[in-house]
Amino acid sequence: MMFRRTGAQVRERTQTQNLRTDSKTTLKVIPLGGIEEVGENMTIFEYGDDILVVDMGLGFPDETMPGIDYIIPNTKYLEENKKRIRGVIITHGHLDHIGAIPYIMPKIGDPPIYTMKLSGEFIKKRLEEFHLLGRSQIHELNKDDVLTLGNFRIRFFRLNHSIPDGVGLAINTPAGLFVYATDWKFDHTPVDGRPTEFDKLAKFGGEGVALLMSDSTNAEKPGYSLSEKTLGETIDRILFEAKGRVIFSTFSTSVSRVQQVLNSAHKSNRKVVITGRSLVNNVEICLSAGYLNLPAKGMIIKTEQARKLPDSQVVYLVTGSQGEEAAQLARIARSEHKTIEIKKGDTVVVSASPIPGNERSISAVLSNLARLGAKVLYQKILDIHTSGHAYQEDLKLMISLTKPKYFMPIHGEHHMLVAHADLARNVGIPDENIYILESGQMLELSASGAKVAEAKIPTGYVFVDGLGVGDVGEVVLRDRQVMSKDGMFVVIMTIDRKSGKLTGQPDIISRGFIYMKGSEDLLKEVKHEVRKVVETKNGGRVPKEPNWAYIRSEVRDQIGEFLYQRTERRPMILPVVIEV
Amino acid sequence: MMFRRTGAQVRERTQTQNLRTDSKTTLKVIPLGGIEEVGENMTIFEYGDDILVVDMGLGFPDETMPGIDYIIPNTKYLEENKKRIRGVIITHGHLDHIGAIPYIMPKIGDPPIYTMKLSGEFIKKRLEEFHLLGRSQIHELNKDDVLTLGNFRIRFFRLNHSIPDGVGLAINTPAGLFVYATDWKFDHTPVDGRPTEFDKLAKFGGEGVALLMSDSTNAEKPGYSLSEKTLGETIDRILFEAKGRVIFSTFSTSVSRVQQVLNSAHKSNRKVVITGRSLVNNVEICLSAGYLNLPAKGMIIKTEQARKLPDSQVVYLVTGSQGEEAAQLARIARSEHKTIEIKKGDTVVVSASPIPGNERSISAVLSNLARLGAKVLYQKILDIHTSGHAYQEDLKLMISLTKPKYFMPIHGEHHMLVAHADLARNVGIPDENIYILESGQMLELSASGAKVAEAKIPTGYVFVDGLGVGDVGEVVLRDRQVMSKDGMFVVIMTIDRKSGKLTGQPDIISRGFIYMKGSEDLLKEVKHEVRKVVETKNGGRVPKEPNWAYIRSEVRDQIGEFLYQRTERRPMILPVVIEV
Repeated sequence: MMFRRTGAQVRERTQTQNLRTDSKTTLKVIPLGGIEEVGENMTIFEYGDDILVVDMGLGFPDETMPGIDYIIPNTKYLEENKKRIRGVIITHGHLDHIGAIPYIMPKIGDPPIYTMKLSGEFIKKRLEEFHLLGRSQIHELNKDDVLTLGNFRIRFFRLNHSIPDGVGLAINTPAGLFVYATDWKFDHTPVDGRPTEFDKLAKFGGEGVALLMSDSTNAEKPGYSLSEKTLGETIDRILFEAKGRVIFSTFSTSVSRVQQVLNSAHKSNRKVVITGRSLVNNVEICLSAGYLNLPAKGMIIKTEQARKLPDSQVVYLVTGSQGEEAAQLARIARSEHKTIEIKKGDTVVVSASPIPGNERSISAVLSNLARLGAKVLYQKILDIHTSGHAYQEDLKLMISLTKPKYFMPIHGEHHMLVAHADLARNVGIPDENIYILESGQMLELSASGAKVAEAKIPTGYVFVDGLGVGDVGEVVLRDRQVMSKDGMFVVIMTIDRKSGKLTGQPDIISRGFIYMKGSEDLLKEVKHEVRKVVETKNGGRVPKEPNWAYIRSEVRDQIGEFLYQRTERRPMILPVVIEV
Repeated sequence: MMFRRTGAQVRERTQTQNLRTDSKTTLKVIPLGGIEEVGENMTIFEYGDDILVVDMGLGFPDETMPGIDYIIPNTKYLEENKKRIRGVIITHGHLDHIGAIPYIMPKIGDPPIYTMKLSGEFIKKRLEEFHLLGRSQIHELNKDDVLTLGNFRIRFFRLNHSIPDGVGLAINTPAGLFVYATDWKFDHTPVDGRPTEFDKLAKFGGEGVALLMSDSTNAEKPGYSLSEKTLGETIDRILFEAKGRVIFSTFSTSVSRVQQVLNSAHKSNRKVVITGRSLVNNVEICLSAGYLNLPAKGMIIKTEQARKLPDSQVVYLVTGSQGEEAAQLARIARSEHKTIEIKKGDTVVVSASPIPGNERSISAVLSNLARLGAKVLYQKILDIHTSGHAYQEDLKLMISLTKPKYFMPIHGEHHMLVAHADLARNVGIPDENIYILESGQMLELSASGAKVAEAKIPTGYVFVDGLGVGDVGEVVLRDRQVMSKDGMFVVIMTIDRKSGKLTGQPDIISRGFIYMKGSEDLLKEVKHEVRKVVETKNGGRVPKEPNWAYIRSEVRDQIGEFLYQRTERRPMILPVVIEV
């Protein structure tokens, strides 16, 4: 998810400024993304000649970026300094932390990647999809390993999150120890039995933490986040009580949720059909890497087998919990799914909270499912989702455990970072020791203290659209916005080079503006207006050097104004002169 | 707000079917909108020769309807039967109940409007804006009046809502008594001192209610809705504690919220500046109609006066609580407001809950305000908004009080109606007596019982776009969607009539597809491809009857495929042949 700096416009901030490598004893912390938006998480750490990169996430477009598939951070600075990159550390396998890897790695010399086992499997899968597997080394580490990369000495600590195997980083540099707490929550009873390593956090606190960077996603939510396990009973109850089939939808990366569905299915004597590409892939990866356990052999079955079972013995695990048009649940809701057709007696569970911006699509999907006869259960009706991110009290505990001198809220939109800063103040971090940065700004940390450097590295969104990376910018997006609002209107004028006159009626091509078949009169008038402009402007004389640019600009203005008077719409006017 | 039948596509449902006026003793209830979406509230009641219309609301477009300003219900049936319309009753002054009046009234013969005083003032203001004031009679009634229109005998009862003077209807017909509970909540301590008339509701219950229709907006929210007055203390505290200016944003129709800000401002010795056209208008209307009380004379001041006061003595009441791009708050956040510039020490309050779909714009506005130095307070951080719609326990109480035989949930998306139906079952309405309708369906009620007629009247969304009403349909919207995603690509081929050959290079005009200046090579290849298609298809021969349609279709397909191969984008391809 993405919250943009401005709702109305995309700003591109690509000024390059010279970076003075102030001193050899300064650590630079440079977030490239994830601090002005949710998504695109990527941070550079730099000490002396060594650069360490943490995470390479992508972001999703908002409504001001029609047609854009993804957004990735601008990595110009890294490209120019690729020789100094000692490694890339990935904290966990979510797309907002690994998604940009295939786009960025080839541009920065494919440095080695260090990560935990499951995250490594997700990264390999992604690289494979882009035919890039094998270009960079992927080192799968153990959470108790100590990794040394140049001036950086890195220890790991386990964090809970909605995907297993997430780790935070404790990085020793000559400028001090800093703790990087990526997406996390505390969970004392995690479904995978692997709780947060509080002991390590306390130990770092004892050693003296210079800087804590911590996840702000839920910094505005009071209280504590709930354990994933609290959902177990609810899922049990749903599966026991449903007389018919249960269609259960969640994020394909919510591995613990999937585990709980498997557990409940086993208890209620149901088999599980898994459908949707990303879910099938992820379950496969997690099963083979040992991060999902089948309560019984043969529990996962194919649709054809499910058809032979009584409805009360089947659960379908499907993608599409965000109402995504192309995912399984939306197809089922539109009665376009090739194997699952809703019937009375079905129970549909949407086990995810809506990512802002998806509320309407989800609501439409729910309504269609209800209309087809399904009983629909979702967040508003019962507690069927817990967040993977820490709430206010958890965030305070993290700060209290690590006792940092300086604090930098990360992972969130600006107002979330501000809320997180308030919490830090509450637990005793002095205001002047809290740093809310913008993308590309750098915090300089040395024995003598911390400060934000005046220089910034180039930043800005790089758009991925189809095969193109970075070939869609502000101009293209603005054109898309204009055309999506009022359509476009092409006026083709075939003009005789010699006489300077139109050879016939101008041709009009228009789309998205008005229903053309019902607007013959308007079009006739437009053609008349065009003729008037051409004839007036050329003055009926044979122009020595016909000024087509001038004619085009006059037609654009005057036809634009004419159409606005008639319709109060402003289609994009595109005048074309064909000289014959 | 709008939740559409399908997320992806707008369906138009305009089949006309003959309506058999089954019997002279049947009441027909025909919702035209507001039962498959939030918004567009409008219902027809028909008995014998008499038609009664209740509310005429508009709806707002969702993301599948780019460029659309509003949506209004299809009123073809009423246009064809306008002679039988005895009157229009408006329950309250919100746009989703009065907004379509200027579009619809002239088409149905400007029948008389009956409503309460404040709603009447809002309607007049709206008609004035459309230069339609004076065409239909507007009768301002008292809530204790009894209105007889043909076979309908109408009594009113006061309901609480986020705008004053809202009423529900108790309508006696020869087919029985039915109760129409439009947008409502129960509020035992309303700010305007005008509580719900429970006594009347109980009285109707005693008389025997055949049918209850009731608001489903919050049917998925457990518990009771809170009184508007509970916010008073919070607003007091904010205004007392803020050392600088307070900028307070809410819906322009939330009159009680405005009253509370005036009250708190008075207590904390602040003056109030009101800015934003709709807010200024509404405050003016409410002050002169006696629905807003100034705690002290001269409390409302102009910006110029406010500038002379200390910051701690000023509150700005502004529009834009939904992050709307053109409203005051968003302008302030973009530093584009002509008089209000944010500085450190300012407190900004957003006192409204986000309408689904607006979350991202609001979040962007909040972040920009925080970045400019303001302290930002909103729903997530503290309870600074209460809903104007009843929660589950209130909804049950309404049913228990009126004890209807039949029940029809209204005002909401389908899944909200389903949730409301569940509540009705819980309090004892038998399943077979609950009717969830689709727009245009009719419930027939007579002494012998109720049933949904097989016939439907024409329905579907009518789009308002600029000056056009109904001239944008599915085709235009689909074109806008395609162009917003991947842009468009016009190929102009000037072909010699005699030789069937291109006279020169084809002209390409493209917008929203790719950054053209960086794509010269691609364009060169496209021109080459176009030439190939024209020459192959015309076979180099001089065609006797050149088949331009065929050429165009070939160019569309082949260039479309070529561009997809190269870019994985599908711009709209528009081939044009100019014959010379």
